Amino acid sequence: MSTFNFPFSTILVKTIKYPNIAGVEQLLARPAQNLDSLREPTLAVLRDVCSNGDDALRKYTLQFDRVDLADFKVSAAEFDAAEEMLCSDLKQAILLAAGNIRKFHSAQKEHAQKIETMPGVLCWRKSVGIERVGLYIPGGSAPLFSTVLMLGIPAKIAGCRQITLCTPPDKQGNIHPAILYAARQVGLTDLYRVGGIQAIGAMAFGTKSIPKVDKIFGPGNAYVTAAKQLVSNMGVAIDMPAGPSEVMVLADEIANPQFVAADLLSQAEHGPDSQVVLVTTHEPLISQVEQAIEEQLRALPRADLANKSLTDSQILLVKNDDEMLAVANIYAPEHLIISTENAEQMAEGVINAGSVFIGNYSPESAGDYASGTNHALPTAGYARSFSGVSVDSFVRKITFQKLSQEGIRNIGATVAQMADNEGLQAHRNAVTFRIK
Amino acid sequence: MSTFNFPFSTILVKTIKYPNIAGVEQLLARPAQNLDSLREPTLAVLRDVCSNGDDALRKYTLQFDRVDLADFKVSAAEFDAAEEMLCSDLKQAILLAAGNIRKFHSAQKEHAQKIETMPGVLCWRKSVGIERVGLYIPGGSAPLFSTVLMLGIPAKIAGCRQITLCTPPDKQGNIHPAILYAARQVGLTDLYRVGGIQAIGAMAFGTKSIPKVDKIFGPGNAYVTAAKQLVSNMGVAIDMPAGPSEVMVLADEIANPQFVAADLLSQAEHGPDSQVVLVTTHEPLISQVEQAIEEQLRALPRADLANKSLTDSQILLVKNDDEMLAVANIYAPEHLIISTENAEQMAEGVINAGSVFIGNYSPESAGDYASGTNHALPTAGYARSFSGVSVDSFVRKITFQKLSQEGIRNIGATVAQMADNEGLQAHRNAVTFRIK
Repeated sequence: MSTFNFPFSTILVKTIKYPNIAGVEQLLARPAQNLDSLREPTLAVLRDVCSNGDDALRKYTLQFDRVDLADFKVSAAEFDAAEEMLCSDLKQAILLAAGNIRKFHSAQKEHAQKIETMPGVLCWRKSVGIERVGLYIPGGSAPLFSTVLMLGIPAKIAGCRQITLCTPPDKQGNIHPAILYAARQVGLTDLYRVGGIQAIGAMAFGTKSIPKVDKIFGPGNAYVTAAKQLVSNMGVAIDMPAGPSEVMVLADEIANPQFVAADLLSQAEHGPDSQVVLVTTHEPLISQVEQAIEEQLRALPRADLANKSLTDSQILLVKNDDEMLAVANIYAPEHLIISTENAEQMAEGVINAGSVFIGNYSPESAGDYASGTNHALPTAGYARSFSGVSVDSFVRKITFQKLSQEGIRNIGATVAQMADNEGLQAHRNAVTFRIK
Repeated sequence: MSTFNFPFSTILVKTIKYPNIAGVEQLLARPAQNLDSLREPTLAVLRDVCSNGDDALRKYTLQFDRVDLADFKVSAAEFDAAEEMLCSDLKQAILLAAGNIRKFHSAQKEHAQKIETMPGVLCWRKSVGIERVGLYIPGGSAPLFSTVLMLGIPAKIAGCRQITLCTPPDKQGNIHPAILYAARQVGLTDLYRVGGIQAIGAMAFGTKSIPKVDKIFGPGNAYVTAAKQLVSNMGVAIDMPAGPSEVMVLADEIANPQFVAADLLSQAEHGPDSQVVLVTTHEPLISQVEQAIEEQLRALPRADLANKSLTDSQILLVKNDDEMLAVANIYAPEHLIISTENAEQMAEGVINAGSVFIGNYSPESAGDYASGTNHALPTAGYARSFSGVSVDSFVRKITFQKLSQEGIRNIGATVAQMADNEGLQAHRNAVTFRIK
């Protein structure tokens, strides 16, 4: 049992009844995540890694992770030991999850389709894996081996040739065996025990030990987020901007209060800044969910984190299904759970969300781990413009064209006309010389 | 004829014979584009637009575009007038190009495919257009109506609901009729005569006249590029980082020196910082191309721009086809033209490029205008990690899942096991409560 002292009796979460939908954007505004104050200290570490390579990595690993490392790369013997050490139930779970994730992501591979836009003008595009990618797996309170699967599997399907994984070591210099096991199952071999800003710098610039990459993926704390943002302005691509994790649940009278409470808490336990919102048309559900939250919360080891995040969370009571859907599309949640009578129909109307969970038996944690969809998703409203990680994130779609002599004749006058009118005579020549 | 005084006799471009391939990355290093010095002045304009909205737009439009505007939005009457004014040859050309671009991009629409990863676990993803997008079309020396097609057509195919286009006015406050005509053909109606940093700010923050958008697309000068980079750290997505345009031509004995020269010049005329590289295995081609460049250059109205960019360009003589391809993949050019005997086979080996043009009859200008592929492509080596603009750029791929009771039972133990081992008890509960 947690020894946490509950500072509340029954009402846990702020409840707003029948808000004006026009004001919902303001009402649900996320706390601003201001990385400006992290800019200078983060830049200082990045510059040091850029200039001093492995020496800087060693220095910061001693400073932040409290371990003095001779070698960053994880050896084959360590992978072997991890495999031996891990309990077989967890191994089986990782294998089953990996299988589902592989099945879902394999269908995302795009096959080139040649299109003759005019006779003799053949155009197509081909997905080609980004050559060198870097995956960051944070340390901290939980070993995120599930994220190894979520990033490693699409990278492999995409055909990336060089996949580097960085993750911080513990005070003995070790990596959690489940991370090593998951990595090996996915086919990743280049793992480095480096974390934080220094890991992002190592992958962005390259050091003697750690190769430079073209794109960096993965979650992290505010410093890692700031470092990714900074290197993204220095020629390295990143997966997406990051913010605290979030869930919105839409629920009506068919929702089960126990399930709803569990879903809200499973988001809230991620950390004190997690965003949790319940939107319902069914007023009695509110107190039922609140009661269930209170009961479930008492049994949670991470109750303090969860409770902190719940105090910033909200319950909205709205008039009808249309308002529920409108609120979801305005908020653009990372995870959207729809526990309503007409859940599937409502899901059709979702415009802004990272991933949608339909009906009473689709908890967010299914997608977090094992159903097959990716759990690296846009937060902080970025679902309005970003997709979650998929095979797409690990490829470039290169376009190709081959024109025959007939093709250039068919298209030539058009190109010449347009080039002329844009004042680009040499563009015109490139066509007219070929038609002559 | 240009009155430009040629500062060279025969050798125009720096030629390097048989370089060590390991040193090619260094050899072809692009001049660094340092936007740091633009950060503060650009931020100042952005902040002003954020605080003062239309008043700031009016102020900067007077200051930079030399016109005092009462209204930013282009009226229906102006669209009508443009259509009347434009010569029918150009109209036809725009229509033909638009048709090809539409045909090529329509095939990029992804259709949802439901995948049952385990019995009762149904997952799928659906492409949904970004609700609010902003297109920026630069002014300057040429009216880039082709870019209106290249951005507007995929935005429409993607199903974006609100498409805003900003482009700077001339000193009379007008927009070039070809831009208006192209916009109307594509189905764009919300055009605003605002350019530069202030246009990017208007679309990023919204003003009374110009609505806020979620993602901003389009080329621009260094200030526009800096503004896009800055707002991309403030919650608005952008298409890709931008740099000077570039072409690499791979050529052997089957290449036509006139065509190669025209292709190099059609890139060079874009501006003094355009990057132009010829890689060949056929030494005699070098002097032939140089001679053709000199002849063609004399007849070009933009000879001064083209010549400036040529002096920074390079010709590489390499040993064989493998080296040619290796150089292309190291450089990662925006445009890659392959004029070789085995061009199609060589194209198969391309890993890093924005768009590839195969054979003697596929000039870059075909793709710039009318073949159907997109001309908004990654420059500055970003082809290593970014794709060009496509329908993908205008959608989010939202994932969905629906588990049945059988599904949650099939997956439950796995989720519980993994959640336990990541120390996330509430994640476990969300599943176990549903299985009970």
